[in-house]
Amino acid sequence: VKYAVIGTGAIGGYYGGKLAHAGNDVHFLFHSDYTHVKEHGFRVDSIGGDFIVPGTNAYGAAADMPKCDVVLVGLKTTNNGILKDILQHIVHKDSIVILIQNGLGVEDDLARDMPGLQTAGGLAFICSNRIGAGHIHHLDQGRINIGAYGDASRDVLKRVCDDFTSAGVESHLAEDLMFARWQKLVWNIPFNGLTVVLGSETDRIMKNESALALVREMMNEVVDGANACGVPLKREFIDAMIETTMKMPPYSPSMKLDWDNRRPMEIEYIYTRPVAAALAHGFDMRKISMLERQLRFLEKTRV
Amino acid sequence: VKYAVIGTGAIGGYYGGKLAHAGNDVHFLFHSDYTHVKEHGFRVDSIGGDFIVPGTNAYGAAADMPKCDVVLVGLKTTNNGILKDILQHIVHKDSIVILIQNGLGVEDDLARDMPGLQTAGGLAFICSNRIGAGHIHHLDQGRINIGAYGDASRDVLKRVCDDFTSAGVESHLAEDLMFARWQKLVWNIPFNGLTVVLGSETDRIMKNESALALVREMMNEVVDGANACGVPLKREFIDAMIETTMKMPPYSPSMKLDWDNRRPMEIEYIYTRPVAAALAHGFDMRKISMLERQLRFLEKTRV
Repeated sequence: VKYAVIGTGAIGGYYGGKLAHAGNDVHFLFHSDYTHVKEHGFRVDSIGGDFIVPGTNAYGAAADMPKCDVVLVGLKTTNNGILKDILQHIVHKDSIVILIQNGLGVEDDLARDMPGLQTAGGLAFICSNRIGAGHIHHLDQGRINIGAYGDASRDVLKRVCDDFTSAGVESHLAEDLMFARWQKLVWNIPFNGLTVVLGSETDRIMKNESALALVREMMNEVVDGANACGVPLKREFIDAMIETTMKMPPYSPSMKLDWDNRRPMEIEYIYTRPVAAALAHGFDMRKISMLERQLRFLEKTRV
Repeated sequence: VKYAVIGTGAIGGYYGGKLAHAGNDVHFLFHSDYTHVKEHGFRVDSIGGDFIVPGTNAYGAAADMPKCDVVLVGLKTTNNGILKDILQHIVHKDSIVILIQNGLGVEDDLARDMPGLQTAGGLAFICSNRIGAGHIHHLDQGRINIGAYGDASRDVLKRVCDDFTSAGVESHLAEDLMFARWQKLVWNIPFNGLTVVLGSETDRIMKNESALALVREMMNEVVDGANACGVPLKREFIDAMIETTMKMPPYSPSMKLDWDNRRPMEIEYIYTRPVAAALAHGFDMRKISMLERQLRFLEKTRV
């Protein structure tokens, strides 16, 4: 399997880097880090062991890349406007594109923009940050679940999961992509937005009675919203997420880092789309909608 | 009528000041501003005309004050713990205490602490700030509505309204105090908390599509909560409040000023009590509850 990684940052760099480090054939697209990485390679400081990926297969433009069988997309969803232009250079007729992205609706949009393309979703459970040019810091966790969208080949995706497992990354084929996406939202929805609006990392939120109660209420809204959409998320999953977060070191989710670094926030796919999906099925996720409105205000009025 | 003013700040100073300036017998209790005011009087810079109230009737301790017929309480509700100790020195058996305070439940608490005392609520519709020692700035509006609590004398309260009117302050006797308090919450609930959490004055909120939509949604929750409690607030009142706020200059509500100046916020009476009251009648004001939790977090974790 020939792999491509689009958006080689905290997510794409870690997962693609692990595959390359294990000997797979992986081709990486870089933007601002290209010159640095071509010369020095890129570095992953990981709780599972540090390593460096050489710059041999680094590219500065999609047009220079080979056609690949599996494309891992690690772009922020705020950059999805350029996705089609990039993919056109890289995919062949049997390629599968795995969107390792947050939120709901990314596969729908890609399927609309590139009909006939095999698409899948990647759900990364990981604390990982880009801390400099060609330099990624992997702090905690690292599991990735992959789920087919529509009629994408389960066999190829199973092979990708096996490659991840061989590379030391826990990976499972999700039976139901929508279930997996909603499940991930149980954590992402409260923590991404609240850390921004409340100006706090996860730890202070977990230690504060009011904020923790709010986190639970929002998680319950996600579960109720999922069920309204026909996705049978169980309420018990909330306790598991709370327990996991309690054990985490103080953490800034990706949206908090985006906000702190004055980058656009992934409001559309993490908030607007799930709220719209639930509402289309008759359930109003009121607190999540409120957080979406607060985030939209903050982003728009940021000076 | 002999008047006392407890808490001579932005609210008590303006309303008591207007009464005194019109020739009424008004006695003012000061805390930190006492020495300054005793010597220089206090100054009200008002859109209705600037004036100075001499320090003759200024007091630094409740024990030094005469018994008064009508007590106007302009304290922040966060100081209501000292209210009973102060009032004991000032009230006689027929006194009426008018709580010119925000939120829901202040009269309940006073009636519990001082059984038999005649109590009323004052609803101030005013943009007014204390900008220095014995110095108040009245920027906009100024109406005060007064409503009897329990069996407080309507006749005396009508007389107070007349005194206000004669002093150039629009004033009405509210038929139903609970109606008046809930009505005031339609504005206070969205703007007090959102200006804190979003770090913005009213004007930027009004100009932002998402924030304005959220304001409307929260106002609708207040109307629904009031109706659940048997208070027949009408939805049309929301449009009136939006229109009024559109015309206001950029404004920081009292809670925003409290936050900016590192004072305690009036979360209990503006948020916690209304949420509890509606919930006791089966209606969950979900967005208002969310704002309460966000404010509790911010207050508790403020460094």
